[in-house]
Amino acid sequence: MKKSNIVTLSVTKPETARSNWEREYAERLPNEVEIKNRSGIAIKPLYTPEDWNAEEFSEKLGYPGQVPMTRGIYATMHRERVWSQRQLIGFGVPEDYNQRLKNLLDAGNSAVSLIPCNSVYRGYDIDEVDPKLLGTCGVTVNTVADMDRCFKDVDIKALSTSLNDPLPFTLLALLLAVTRKRGIHWKHVTGTSNQSDYISHYVANHMFFRLSLEGSRRVLVDHIDFCQRHVPNWNPLSVVGQHMQQAGATPAEAMAFTLATAIQYAEDCIARGQDPNQFLERFTFFFDISLSFFEEISKCRAGRRIWQQTVRERFGVHNPKAWRFKFHGQTSGVDLTRQEPLNNIARVTVQALAGVFSGLQSLHTDSYDEVLSAPTEEAARIAVATQNIIREEAHCADVIDPLAGSYYVESLTDQMESEIRSVLGRIDDAGGMFKAVEKGMVQHWIGQSAMRFQEQVENGEQTIVGVNKYQKLDNDVAAKPLKRPEESKIAGQLQKLAAYKANRNKSDYRSAVASLQAAAQDESQNIYGAIVDAVSAGMTHGEVVRLLRQELGFGQPQTLVWPSRKTRVTQLVRIQFLPICSMGLENHWRGR
Amino acid sequence: MKKSNIVTLSVTKPETARSNWEREYAERLPNEVEIKNRSGIAIKPLYTPEDWNAEEFSEKLGYPGQVPMTRGIYATMHRERVWSQRQLIGFGVPEDYNQRLKNLLDAGNSAVSLIPCNSVYRGYDIDEVDPKLLGTCGVTVNTVADMDRCFKDVDIKALSTSLNDPLPFTLLALLLAVTRKRGIHWKHVTGTSNQSDYISHYVANHMFFRLSLEGSRRVLVDHIDFCQRHVPNWNPLSVVGQHMQQAGATPAEAMAFTLATAIQYAEDCIARGQDPNQFLERFTFFFDISLSFFEEISKCRAGRRIWQQTVRERFGVHNPKAWRFKFHGQTSGVDLTRQEPLNNIARVTVQALAGVFSGLQSLHTDSYDEVLSAPTEEAARIAVATQNIIREEAHCADVIDPLAGSYYVESLTDQMESEIRSVLGRIDDAGGMFKAVEKGMVQHWIGQSAMRFQEQVENGEQTIVGVNKYQKLDNDVAAKPLKRPEESKIAGQLQKLAAYKANRNKSDYRSAVASLQAAAQDESQNIYGAIVDAVSAGMTHGEVVRLLRQELGFGQPQTLVWPSRKTRVTQLVRIQFLPICSMGLENHWRGR
Repeated sequence: MKKSNIVTLSVTKPETARSNWEREYAERLPNEVEIKNRSGIAIKPLYTPEDWNAEEFSEKLGYPGQVPMTRGIYATMHRERVWSQRQLIGFGVPEDYNQRLKNLLDAGNSAVSLIPCNSVYRGYDIDEVDPKLLGTCGVTVNTVADMDRCFKDVDIKALSTSLNDPLPFTLLALLLAVTRKRGIHWKHVTGTSNQSDYISHYVANHMFFRLSLEGSRRVLVDHIDFCQRHVPNWNPLSVVGQHMQQAGATPAEAMAFTLATAIQYAEDCIARGQDPNQFLERFTFFFDISLSFFEEISKCRAGRRIWQQTVRERFGVHNPKAWRFKFHGQTSGVDLTRQEPLNNIARVTVQALAGVFSGLQSLHTDSYDEVLSAPTEEAARIAVATQNIIREEAHCADVIDPLAGSYYVESLTDQMESEIRSVLGRIDDAGGMFKAVEKGMVQHWIGQSAMRFQEQVENGEQTIVGVNKYQKLDNDVAAKPLKRPEESKIAGQLQKLAAYKANRNKSDYRSAVASLQAAAQDESQNIYGAIVDAVSAGMTHGEVVRLLRQELGFGQPQTLVWPSRKTRVTQLVRIQFLPICSMGLENHWRGR
Repeated sequence: MKKSNIVTLSVTKPETARSNWEREYAERLPNEVEIKNRSGIAIKPLYTPEDWNAEEFSEKLGYPGQVPMTRGIYATMHRERVWSQRQLIGFGVPEDYNQRLKNLLDAGNSAVSLIPCNSVYRGYDIDEVDPKLLGTCGVTVNTVADMDRCFKDVDIKALSTSLNDPLPFTLLALLLAVTRKRGIHWKHVTGTSNQSDYISHYVANHMFFRLSLEGSRRVLVDHIDFCQRHVPNWNPLSVVGQHMQQAGATPAEAMAFTLATAIQYAEDCIARGQDPNQFLERFTFFFDISLSFFEEISKCRAGRRIWQQTVRERFGVHNPKAWRFKFHGQTSGVDLTRQEPLNNIARVTVQALAGVFSGLQSLHTDSYDEVLSAPTEEAARIAVATQNIIREEAHCADVIDPLAGSYYVESLTDQMESEIRSVLGRIDDAGGMFKAVEKGMVQHWIGQSAMRFQEQVENGEQTIVGVNKYQKLDNDVAAKPLKRPEESKIAGQLQKLAAYKANRNKSDYRSAVASLQAAAQDESQNIYGAIVDAVSAGMTHGEVVRLLRQELGFGQPQTLVWPSRKTRVTQLVRIQFLPICSMGLENHWRGR
């Protein structure tokens, strides 16, 4: 303790306090290495009024529910509207889903989800794939009859359903066909088309990418238009930053890519004559909440501020409801580890807290065992309990935007905003998100960021507890057997599909195929209306996707390949269906 | 959605923004019930620059390591000095402790602890109690020979040891005797006398209370003086808010009682001629970090601010090192539940994060299974990992006092400060902490607060997940068998004690007893020096405590009893050793 720390401890005048602190800090840590967050922003040891101009309160913060929306999109936020706690469900056959759904409804839930089987994500019916792949991480639903069984004895009007339903949105089409059959007006169908963001799939989640880029572009715009006219309380679009962040984009990049994607979709809709005052009310967003606590809070606050300004100024929208940046957050699964998986409960808690402080509308907390398999019910209970503990035991949602005014948080929010705007500028320069993605630019940037993070993990700059530091001596990774549905149930489901195809009205079916084909070839028609009619007339999910793939082009994302670490040269190649599928099934899918 | 939310969403002028927000909030939540934190402070839905005067930066915040110390006691805080991660260890016999200690040292730890067996806490040697009670939650250490075996082949100079050692500090006496025997100068003995705060034991942790109040008062002052002179790098005092908060005091009360206790001890030392510029440098504090996230952060920031002012102005201390409010935090065990114990990992994570944001110097995170028994090694690993995840994965300690400037946090810090000062005023009015405790006032206040919290849990105002809300259908509480040391080891330890007593030098022993008795009867002698000499000469822990109980009075805390809920009349009664002992052993101890 030879260093001088007596002098500066004295009661000093304000003028000298700062220089005293700076001197003492520098004396004690003369060779400190600069700390940067994941987005590359340098993090100082201390933030003071010099780092954020408190007089900018009105311009930068203001009040929740008001421009610039930094503090939240509603006046009352979580005091009135608790975020939705929406856990993913989907396993086995429709009867299994129906049972789990009823359990959730009995327990008081009304916000539910439907996760389909991987075969569905890839655009196939269950009779097109190896049966042992079926129903392990989602429900096998292909037909109107399947969807009817999923919601058997369930009041669809009383639900808000999040469908994990990549375009061409066959699941929503099946749900609309079911509600029409039940005599329920579509205005009562509420929920969200999750996974509707084809650009994010093209860039970062190839398993969900089904049609060509241009074909996807048309289907999405028609889908938004159709819902606007006929399913007015449905959110047809969720723009997804999650996939890109999980693929390696920094939080700032992920926010920028998401905003750029939303701008692209808005421009596409406007180009087809739609009114942004209307359709933008129904845009929603979906973000990954990583462990980088303050960065995630700042990312979301900055995103809200940029979006409202974009909507007001770029699109001239005067409907204040359309200025709201509604978003769902999911705690990031890529931060979790297979080593000592109970540590993931601590990770998810920190992520969820960042999500709550960022003012989200809906939250999914990962189960600690998702690194090993589909979550067990016990682990899913803990994930939900974590949200309840944060809100009701720790009282972390009693105050709206509780960190507002913090020198660090406000300074970082401004810096994240400027970083996000800089990436947005590069995308604008490239001619917008569609073009930037078509050229592989976005994929390239993500690849670079992913590589940078991986290098930090490998050289120890970024700790991962139990993986590159603090390892257990016998660091065995827990293995959990894959939970599979009973074989007899899958066999029964295959029989039902065969019977469905055999028994459907042949002439209705043939005319549905012809109408869908005609709609695909005629851009003046709304193709999504034709899809809803087609499934109502008996076409299956796989058949719809196959036909559209023929008419609009097969979805083949570009993928980046680094030939070697050393050269760091990136190459754009086309890969037929890059397999991204959990649970070791990759080899089964490869080659499809 | 009939309520008007269009109007106020428009871009408004700063002058009208606030009133618009207020109107909309009141329209949407006209009958909202006021939310209060545990300390009874009303929590508003929104905080703005109107709630905290940013121009008070220099006076209220300033720079870390400088007055008013709100932002931390060191210029560099966690950037230079990572908080100590000190997990409690102690189980079985000295050989077991020695093995566990060596494992920790091999793993790179240097900050360790020693938790003795419950029999030791109660002031007895192991041959005075039922053998089946021994070694279940701490190590059986009674003699210099035992302590020598605890630290066998361990370099005491390289350790910082936290001894859970209520006064008369026999464990430190044993350690000093061992180091003297090994020829190590006492200046190399570093660590803390934990559980040295007899007032907190008298009020709230009766198991650790051994001598009468007046007797305790003398021993503590002598102990501080002795360490000051002879063991200069030892912290002789840890003033403990934890016990009182766990007994039911609100966070503001717990902070006030702790500060008042420290003031009492300082005044007692000054009255005996000690220099506060010296002894206050070695005062440390110990707080419970509950789940009330923002309240805990504000409690600690306010405590730092009050303490430095007290030390400077009340005691006229000019040594800046003595202005530092050094504290250890332990995540609160009373917030944990036996129901679905893995949820405790989420609770501990939130508590630990509050502790880190509050700028602590040392942190103990509870293991999720401590509600069931002494922690397993696996659960203790997760508790430590939680700290590493917060610091190195979530980067929550990169910035010093990261929430500074937040309208909510600064406003709450000011309000907590004023609440704490108000309680301090009541204690001053009562003539100081010693008198307030002697009269039972503090116990009465704690009882009232405990009752209020319990009522909130019972009427559902305060959720406890899995207990009074969100219960599991089959809400079985997990049972874990009590881990016990091998019977043969305990038998061996008892034999060793018998042999120790038989083989010690009889005349040395007799003269040690006589000297200790003489010192106890002569206030001009330092009684702690006599204790160190007594154990060096062969007296055991139990013998020292028994003799001092005879000379200075037996420790019998006052306890409050509520005869009935309805009348709410409190009664002061004397109970011979209120049993507070974990793990269902109460009945064994009762009646002692």
